[in-house]
Amino acid sequence: MSDQVVLLGTHVSMFAMRVKIALAEKGIQYEYKEENLMNKSPLLLQMNPIHKKIPVLIHNGKPVCESLIIVEYIDEVWKDKSPLLPSDPYKRAQARFWADYVDKKIYDGGKKIWTTKEEDQEAANKEFIEYLKVLEGELGDKPYFGGESFGFVDMALIPYYSWFPAYEKFGKFSIEAVCPKFVAWAKRCMQKESVSKSLYDPDKISDFVVMLRQRLGIA
Amino acid sequence: MSDQVVLLGTHVSMFAMRVKIALAEKGIQYEYKEENLMNKSPLLLQMNPIHKKIPVLIHNGKPVCESLIIVEYIDEVWKDKSPLLPSDPYKRAQARFWADYVDKKIYDGGKKIWTTKEEDQEAANKEFIEYLKVLEGELGDKPYFGGESFGFVDMALIPYYSWFPAYEKFGKFSIEAVCPKFVAWAKRCMQKESVSKSLYDPDKISDFVVMLRQRLGIA
Repeated sequence: MSDQVVLLGTHVSMFAMRVKIALAEKGIQYEYKEENLMNKSPLLLQMNPIHKKIPVLIHNGKPVCESLIIVEYIDEVWKDKSPLLPSDPYKRAQARFWADYVDKKIYDGGKKIWTTKEEDQEAANKEFIEYLKVLEGELGDKPYFGGESFGFVDMALIPYYSWFPAYEKFGKFSIEAVCPKFVAWAKRCMQKESVSKSLYDPDKISDFVVMLRQRLGIA
Repeated sequence: MSDQVVLLGTHVSMFAMRVKIALAEKGIQYEYKEENLMNKSPLLLQMNPIHKKIPVLIHNGKPVCESLIIVEYIDEVWKDKSPLLPSDPYKRAQARFWADYVDKKIYDGGKKIWTTKEEDQEAANKEFIEYLKVLEGELGDKPYFGGESFGFVDMALIPYYSWFPAYEKFGKFSIEAVCPKFVAWAKRCMQKESVSKSLYDPDKISDFVVMLRQRLGIA
């Protein structure tokens, strides 16, 4: 039986981008369905009735939700090609720790940059840069977070790179100026087709953020 | 070589209780060190420099942080006894989804009950009960969340049972009256020695909450 794989996502979602990268790394054919979060499809509401959020991976009719859980699922089901998590339990725990760090800090930290009041802009930028510097410290001189090859933490983090121009536009700062090693790592990841083809156009993300700011009454 | 296992925790922490249950299920000997979060030990700061939080499992000198990551690590290292996660990838993803649901909803939902203003008490109680009812729905008529045997989701959730009397005291409601199946499940879990010996005295947790409320200026 050939697998039927469907991904519900939105183009701008860093969480959906993670899943696209994982599917590309594994060479899995799938059908992508773009969701409109202002008018969610009956399929999304049926497949993720608890959180009603994207991404959802539907594998042979059964849903898996939450991006990191989806990526682990993909890694466990299609285990013969491009392992994403290391096999050693300690290294696996470290990879999960850093992916969890990304989830706990980077999304909210980044959002604060483009939602904050002008007087709090500098503090928001500073906080976000601190998080990136922690990650830069963990990366150290390794090419990827897990060592020599692209893996779980890289996949969790790299979609944010497509949001960097938006953060820089509204934060009025250069990430490369303060975190050059981090940006060198991001460019290294972008040389992989699985990544470059999965990340959305940064200009369109900036346009999306402009629209969100208008809707929130910030602009 | 025999393993050296140390757990840094606090007695009242539901996150540390999870790890105690996992270690008990696996029959692992370990040294427990109680932390004072008002005056964190140099060992804690050294072993978890990123979050500076408990629990931390130190296995042969190397730290693992974040309770669910620790439990997965324990399950992977000591895999011969009492498996905590199912072996099937889809069931594993479902177990991770529900443990993640517990982390996203139950801690904050419970905390709101004893930190909220009087006029918001009813809304806080209602929200918490809604989360429990979602879990009760997922449990259904199964003895445990994963089916016939105690597993990952049970372990993630059961420590909150020791906080129920505190929630009920400050929320002025009975959880059993609204979620009888949930409480029946909790009592079933408590019949396991690995659970009953790992959960802290609910009266002491209530005293602790009284102290926290005084410190926060609520009482």
